[in-house]
Amino acid sequence: MKKHMVIFQPSGRRGDVEEGKTLLEAAQSLGVDIEGLCGRKKVCGKCKVRIEEGYFEKDNLDSGMKHLSALSEDEKKHIKPEDGPQIRLACTAEIYGDVKVFVPERSRAGKQVVRKAAKELSIALDPAVKKYNIDLVPPTLEDMTTGDYERVLKFLEDDYGLKDLTFDYLVLKDLQDVLRKGNWKATVTLWMDREIIKVEPGFVETCYGLAVDVGTTTCVGYLSDLTTGRVVNTESIMNPQVPYGEDVMSRITYAMTNPDGLEKMQKAIIEGINEIIIRSISDIKNDDPKPGFAIDDLTIVFNTAMHHIFLGLNPIYIGRSPFIPAVQNSLDIKARDTGLKINPSAYIHVLPLEAGFVGADNVGVLIAEEPYNQDEMVLVIDIGTNGELLLGNRDKVCSTSCATGPAFEGAQIKFGMRAAPGAIEKVQIDPFTKEPVYKVIGKADWHTHLEKVNAKGICGSGIIEVAAEMFKAGIIDKSGRFVKDIKTQRVRKDSDGKPEYVLAWAEETSIGADITITQGDIRAIQLAKAAIHTGAKLLMKRLGIKKVERVILAGAFGSHIDRESSMILGMFPDCPIESVYAVGNAAGDGARMALLNRAKRVEANERARWVEFIEIATDPKFEREFMQAMHIPHMKDEFPNVKKLLEKSESTVEIKG
Amino acid sequence: MKKHMVIFQPSGRRGDVEEGKTLLEAAQSLGVDIEGLCGRKKVCGKCKVRIEEGYFEKDNLDSGMKHLSALSEDEKKHIKPEDGPQIRLACTAEIYGDVKVFVPERSRAGKQVVRKAAKELSIALDPAVKKYNIDLVPPTLEDMTTGDYERVLKFLEDDYGLKDLTFDYLVLKDLQDVLRKGNWKATVTLWMDREIIKVEPGFVETCYGLAVDVGTTTCVGYLSDLTTGRVVNTESIMNPQVPYGEDVMSRITYAMTNPDGLEKMQKAIIEGINEIIIRSISDIKNDDPKPGFAIDDLTIVFNTAMHHIFLGLNPIYIGRSPFIPAVQNSLDIKARDTGLKINPSAYIHVLPLEAGFVGADNVGVLIAEEPYNQDEMVLVIDIGTNGELLLGNRDKVCSTSCATGPAFEGAQIKFGMRAAPGAIEKVQIDPFTKEPVYKVIGKADWHTHLEKVNAKGICGSGIIEVAAEMFKAGIIDKSGRFVKDIKTQRVRKDSDGKPEYVLAWAEETSIGADITITQGDIRAIQLAKAAIHTGAKLLMKRLGIKKVERVILAGAFGSHIDRESSMILGMFPDCPIESVYAVGNAAGDGARMALLNRAKRVEANERARWVEFIEIATDPKFEREFMQAMHIPHMKDEFPNVKKLLEKSESTVEIKG
Repeated sequence: MKKHMVIFQPSGRRGDVEEGKTLLEAAQSLGVDIEGLCGRKKVCGKCKVRIEEGYFEKDNLDSGMKHLSALSEDEKKHIKPEDGPQIRLACTAEIYGDVKVFVPERSRAGKQVVRKAAKELSIALDPAVKKYNIDLVPPTLEDMTTGDYERVLKFLEDDYGLKDLTFDYLVLKDLQDVLRKGNWKATVTLWMDREIIKVEPGFVETCYGLAVDVGTTTCVGYLSDLTTGRVVNTESIMNPQVPYGEDVMSRITYAMTNPDGLEKMQKAIIEGINEIIIRSISDIKNDDPKPGFAIDDLTIVFNTAMHHIFLGLNPIYIGRSPFIPAVQNSLDIKARDTGLKINPSAYIHVLPLEAGFVGADNVGVLIAEEPYNQDEMVLVIDIGTNGELLLGNRDKVCSTSCATGPAFEGAQIKFGMRAAPGAIEKVQIDPFTKEPVYKVIGKADWHTHLEKVNAKGICGSGIIEVAAEMFKAGIIDKSGRFVKDIKTQRVRKDSDGKPEYVLAWAEETSIGADITITQGDIRAIQLAKAAIHTGAKLLMKRLGIKKVERVILAGAFGSHIDRESSMILGMFPDCPIESVYAVGNAAGDGARMALLNRAKRVEANERARWVEFIEIATDPKFEREFMQAMHIPHMKDEFPNVKKLLEKSESTVEIKG
Repeated sequence: MKKHMVIFQPSGRRGDVEEGKTLLEAAQSLGVDIEGLCGRKKVCGKCKVRIEEGYFEKDNLDSGMKHLSALSEDEKKHIKPEDGPQIRLACTAEIYGDVKVFVPERSRAGKQVVRKAAKELSIALDPAVKKYNIDLVPPTLEDMTTGDYERVLKFLEDDYGLKDLTFDYLVLKDLQDVLRKGNWKATVTLWMDREIIKVEPGFVETCYGLAVDVGTTTCVGYLSDLTTGRVVNTESIMNPQVPYGEDVMSRITYAMTNPDGLEKMQKAIIEGINEIIIRSISDIKNDDPKPGFAIDDLTIVFNTAMHHIFLGLNPIYIGRSPFIPAVQNSLDIKARDTGLKINPSAYIHVLPLEAGFVGADNVGVLIAEEPYNQDEMVLVIDIGTNGELLLGNRDKVCSTSCATGPAFEGAQIKFGMRAAPGAIEKVQIDPFTKEPVYKVIGKADWHTHLEKVNAKGICGSGIIEVAAEMFKAGIIDKSGRFVKDIKTQRVRKDSDGKPEYVLAWAEETSIGADITITQGDIRAIQLAKAAIHTGAKLLMKRLGIKKVERVILAGAFGSHIDRESSMILGMFPDCPIESVYAVGNAAGDGARMALLNRAKRVEANERARWVEFIEIATDPKFEREFMQAMHIPHMKDEFPNVKKLLEKSESTVEIKG
């Protein structure tokens, strides 16, 4: 049967698909996330996609398009002018030629799963933005020489001891009407107890702030009530810059080689964050025409390249020697100058950078985990598309970054996906039968054999677990190669003759295909973990220490990364398991802390300068260390604690030490 | 012959004009200012006007329009699409029906004449905006953890001792390229030694600021070099809000009664100031696509209503009891938030208000004349569409405002005009022959009889002089009435049978008509001077003083107001002539001082609060005082000094005292 190449953006997934299949079927077979609420009944209209190439509307609007079936009546009913041009329903459009398809975020099935209850942070509540109720005496002819503005300032000074305040110009414009509407009772929102950024009629209590973590691949926003410190909503999207490059270097290259590249990517991330803003607040302010304006503060972290692109700063200079960023200090920028649609008088607080590619996100990790307040020697590993490491204690902390690649975020893994409903997040493999059990996001229980659990793919935490379990079960060896002649139908050859392990049979999935872990997937995981291990090792050498006393695993995974699996893979130098902690999205925690306590912002600036950045990629020992670290857990080093773990489990595998 | 009503905006001049006359002829006969460089040869295209009513293009485009002649070939050649709709050349379009015509500022003949050399201010130079040259060491791999931003801050701290600086976000965006373009030499512009508002490659020395005085009728801008304090250019326009109301109250009413009234008037004044900005800087930066961006600071003064409208603040509350302004303090607003097209990172410094209608312009007068530093009892009179008075010394200063009307600005005077070329600015009348001599702006010498001097009308300073001279020559009496049976052809009856005095014969003018001073003109002058006198008198009563020791006459006249004429008219209580000073535009001087010395901004805020505002319109003595002050110089008060003046001149008039 004839096949055609279908490419899905922004994920970049591609594959040959049989002629006549719908775009939705193609998407599912390629593990691409498209909403299909109505189950292909063509009634929900949720699966709208935009055809980027292969749509020849002009020639074939009614007669059928060259590369896709003609627009059906169902589609005409659902597609509206405001959807934009070249929109089709994925469940309906059939493939008759090569096409490139863009899946808008709203048509993607799964919101990233980030624990709603977000870790309770133990931090004193002292946000940069606070609300104050004021109750003015209505003016009379006797005090006509005092303006509205001055009345408000006087009340704030007399009743709250707040001096030398300024008004944002936009707020000033509303002031007269607001005071009179509230009958001289009003609520004033202050930034840093310095500038008035909002005036509302009457007494208002709640005050919202948003902490944003922009990752290379995913972006998360935590909407917080600044009066309680609680996270009231968590929203995430795939970073809309992905189509311009999957990693940091390719995006820098895109900015360098396209005259409008920087502008396009900046626009994409601003729009993406605006999507998070709207989604996070719209349940709460759903009758408000500008719901985002209810948000009065926003803190944001990202790596250095994303930081520059977000700010519209040319990232070219951080991509070439001597790798100088435009700015390292934290910044406070008027929301209206950024295009972010929160209260336009509010400030966006951009956390500071450390150095090179160790960005504001790692500063977030730093102030959340505070290695500088510890006596123990702590290794903090933040796993994303780049891995960032911190090592040290109250005397000294060093940082470095290592190119892990996006494997742990589900990219470059055959069935990898974001931590969304349908993603396999936990895996166990029986060392004797080699049969797996796994847990899918959105299902409460572990799956049982051949049960239809609508698995779609595997997310970061699942990827780490499945690799460790395959090693423990003897399916792969220390070098990461599939062990030959294993007696199980789970291990088989793929179409290229390379071995793969079937984690879920097609019957159990929603994509109509087996979910497998390939030799290529294992290699990607090894490369990623070896990069982290090498970084940690070289940092230890520079600090002259032989072992770490505590390991903290951070990353924006769906569920926490499994510390045992990470240890078994040898992601970091040996350490007692009880001293290994998985903390979730520490960069996001740092952004939240800066949102909830303004002293943390000062701390971030001070500590970002204090941490010593160490460049490890140019270390002469790097290559040898990296090769050795490719082994599971390691080619040479002793891993007594991993050995203990393997003994405790019923693994048949033996390792040195 | 058939006549049609022609109305010209924004001046509001109107009259019946013979059918077949051109719009330019109509304008000249009505004293309306339209450029006619080519002398009606239809080649310069400078006399473009917009037809607001009476233009029926759709029906009659080629066949001739109902109210105007058909569009000629000459007009088609000159009128471009970017001129907008309904544009005609005034020299060509002939009148065949009633029309309303708007004369754009660029088509007006005369720039307001304000002395280019603007008064040398004796003030220490310490502007809010300063430029600093920096010379950085190019970065290397050894100091890669320092960003561009931090390098600039470090240099400014090490070499200039400037600490805790912030960067405007827009400047930050340019920083990387600017530093590299200048090979790490650059010039940093600082606002209040606090915020970096510009970075330019290489070493730049000059630094420009603009002081703006927005009057009800005219607006003036003084472009100053902040490194020398010199005024390098002065530009003025008619306030483009005039079509929405000629005085303050009618503009407030317009804002109250039209939903978009405030917005329209705000837009008009912003565009007007942008016109001043472009004109003032474009000689200097004529190769710059955004010449206004060379201006790094702007101070602005205006009365309370103009202040509110400029800021987009609803003026409704200052127009009704208890007359509370939105804000009184000075404001610093980002230029980009106002729409003013100077450096978008710069600040607009809005001087504070005093109270009621005593606005930032009077604060300008206050800090320019500093009555609070005087031992003598000083009366400062600022004459505009509103008159504002200050009376006091270092112990106490009181202020009030009085509704003078726009007579002294040339409006509501039959041949009144702005102080532009062609305006009669000085007048002397022979007390025996009643023959005048006068001086026209743009001509070096006084005119001689029947010499063609192209007079067009009479401006503020001329109006005051002609009234005083007519009194001295016995043409009008103490009550302001024309004296009957004067033997001169200069005094005659107008078409309504009212007496008028011919100041210039048609042969001497460029408008083809006699320039006359009517009984109505004299009444308007009397009302204006009486308002000022009454204000001064009641302030003196409140302060319990019998006489003033110094009088300062201020106002944005073309030349200085003649102190003798003002005294003779009785514009203020009697005072020795040697203690009367005419200082020109003191409000503008105050704006310039705030531009050149930042301590003046602090002084302005403090003194605006310190001055006591006194409402005189509600004083029970007001009406009687006003009636008495209508007389020249006064009905009852003694004016020994005026008597001396009259004796010294050869006037035949006798006054009491």
